[in-house]
Amino acid sequence: MRDSTDYQTKKQALRRWLTVYGRNPVEACLQDAQLRPKVLHLADSNQKSDKLDRLIALAEKRGCDVRFHDRDALARISKNKKQDQGVALDVECQAFNDLSVFLQSTSEETCRLILLDRVTNPQNLGMILRSTTAAGITGVIVPERGCAPLGPLVAKASAGTLFHAPVLRCTSSSEALDALLGLGFTCYTLSSHTESNFFEEHIPAKAVFVLGNESEGVAPDIASRCQAKVRIPMHNGVESLNVAITAALIAYYLDR
Amino acid sequence: MRDSTDYQTKKQALRRWLTVYGRNPVEACLQDAQLRPKVLHLADSNQKSDKLDRLIALAEKRGCDVRFHDRDALARISKNKKQDQGVALDVECQAFNDLSVFLQSTSEETCRLILLDRVTNPQNLGMILRSTTAAGITGVIVPERGCAPLGPLVAKASAGTLFHAPVLRCTSSSEALDALLGLGFTCYTLSSHTESNFFEEHIPAKAVFVLGNESEGVAPDIASRCQAKVRIPMHNGVESLNVAITAALIAYYLDR
Repeated sequence: MRDSTDYQTKKQALRRWLTVYGRNPVEACLQDAQLRPKVLHLADSNQKSDKLDRLIALAEKRGCDVRFHDRDALARISKNKKQDQGVALDVECQAFNDLSVFLQSTSEETCRLILLDRVTNPQNLGMILRSTTAAGITGVIVPERGCAPLGPLVAKASAGTLFHAPVLRCTSSSEALDALLGLGFTCYTLSSHTESNFFEEHIPAKAVFVLGNESEGVAPDIASRCQAKVRIPMHNGVESLNVAITAALIAYYLDR
Repeated sequence: MRDSTDYQTKKQALRRWLTVYGRNPVEACLQDAQLRPKVLHLADSNQKSDKLDRLIALAEKRGCDVRFHDRDALARISKNKKQDQGVALDVECQAFNDLSVFLQSTSEETCRLILLDRVTNPQNLGMILRSTTAAGITGVIVPERGCAPLGPLVAKASAGTLFHAPVLRCTSSSEALDALLGLGFTCYTLSSHTESNFFEEHIPAKAVFVLGNESEGVAPDIASRCQAKVRIPMHNGVESLNVAITAALIAYYLDR
């Protein structure tokens, strides 16, 4: 039992970590006072350079481990041998959290969340994180299963906001919904066919908005477990909005 | 004088026209009851096919001219020889207008517009048109100079909304500003450095929001002529929002 609890705790802690690769992105993260760099990984095969020396000096200054690996081991860490330039960094994002840890620890009465169900396009995911973080949303749930990986494409599309976004991690949308329904959250999906206008709806203090895949929407087994539907009104025969636009409208309106 | 007036009238009328190319996009426009197809252009070199016969039949049914050209002349019409598939269509978009014609003819007391100053990314332009049209904005001014061309990339990014968007055309941002200031519009730019919160601001009945280039913002000579600045509040250290997100927030909030 002890081992299992330890494993669980470690897994939850690791959900605050991101692995960044490439010399410039790694340098930017090492210089960001709001991030906690944990381990700088370097390939043995890297040739000595001023840039590398600077990265190592920065890492040491930040109290970050420096580890050397053979080239293939580094590629397994970065998961992108072609673009990692022999450098990767594990960084702890203080705004990230494991969903269940967050739900146990939060004492706020008002908690409005967005749950992303299979948002596969990194461009959309990055834009969502950028604008909902700017809006001051409590948290954006990004399940490991189904969503675009939180990697360099998402970081770029988020204009760097990814590292400071209130990302809540879990395994799947279904697991997130179990936890949220158990805690009395009202779970909303968006629909153009319902009468309830999002902008006129009374949104309870504990609410989550489930936004779905770009072409298929929210998965039927997830949608069927949500208790409420709202629509964002659309004029001029427009049938749908981009998911990043929808997320921004929801997050900013909730902040009003 | 007569000739000059005729020329001006014709130019204004042509600002409601778009040229579409490629067999499927042309077919979609010919089938859209809300558009007025004007001229179907075909290359002499096209081989006979059922699809082409169907396009010609559709065009005739809609009262649309059918004209044949040599291959190079068709390429000059489509401006994209590689992808036009020997087919182009001039289509009148009833929601489009020439800015000065619109300003002379509108009798609405409330007129809220967005002016796009050098939005060069077709992806952003398409998203802006999609969400502001959905929000029911009165008009989006897209100057010919500086903005991405209203072509297939914008149409795709707009999810087809481009053809039904309230696009107001003019030559340049500067020309648009002259006209709007002359008619008593309040011209706003967005700034993160001002105290005025857009969501709390009283917006006058006649107002235009000038949104600028993705990296440079609004051109200095345009910004300096605007009378007011507002900010969209941003939390968590986020420094800016994507221009398409900004446009959607403005358009939807003005509709409230």
